[in-house]
Amino acid sequence: MRIALDDAALLHRDAPEAQEARAEGNRAFGAFMREALPDVSDTTHALACELIITTLTSGGKVFSETARTPAEIDAYSTAMADMFCAYLAHLTRD
Amino acid sequence: MRIALDDAALLHRDAPEAQEARAEGNRAFGAFMREALPDVSDTTHALACELIITTLTSGGKVFSETARTPAEIDAYSTAMADMFCAYLAHLTRD
Repeated sequence: MRIALDDAALLHRDAPEAQEARAEGNRAFGAFMREALPDVSDTTHALACELIITTLTSGGKVFSETARTPAEIDAYSTAMADMFCAYLAHLTRD
Repeated sequence: MRIALDDAALLHRDAPEAQEARAEGNRAFGAFMREALPDVSDTTHALACELIITTLTSGGKVFSETARTPAEIDAYSTAMADMFCAYLAHLTRD
């Protein structure tokens, strides 16, 4: 199942529709992060966006490669959200 | 080069020496995190260890898949370290 999904993902990844959806998602996330961090430089904003998106996607991918209970999923996603919130609070304090 | 490294990594990953080195690394990291978070529960400690190790390894892997300047590497690793420090400070405050 994972192999079939990987094959489908490879075909899907570079399709124009997928690129457009990804660009739209990045714009929305950038706007959200600009609201959360109104006073930081564009450089800090871009770096924080990249770090959070990469952590969310790559960390989520690795976590999902092992079977997990709903309680484990809840605990891990809450911990990751706490980490992001602590980082955003740190950036707004500087 | 990356493919050759991937093949070598697959052979290396499950070797007893590699498992032992990984277990030793996990013990050292767990001890470091226990010093950083002396008052949290074992559950919170284990979750924070998993989250930080996964973020470091999977986020680092994705970041390194694109060519980067030394300045970009420095900025990204500093941002990731800031995120971890903010998360640890948040956990010690609770």
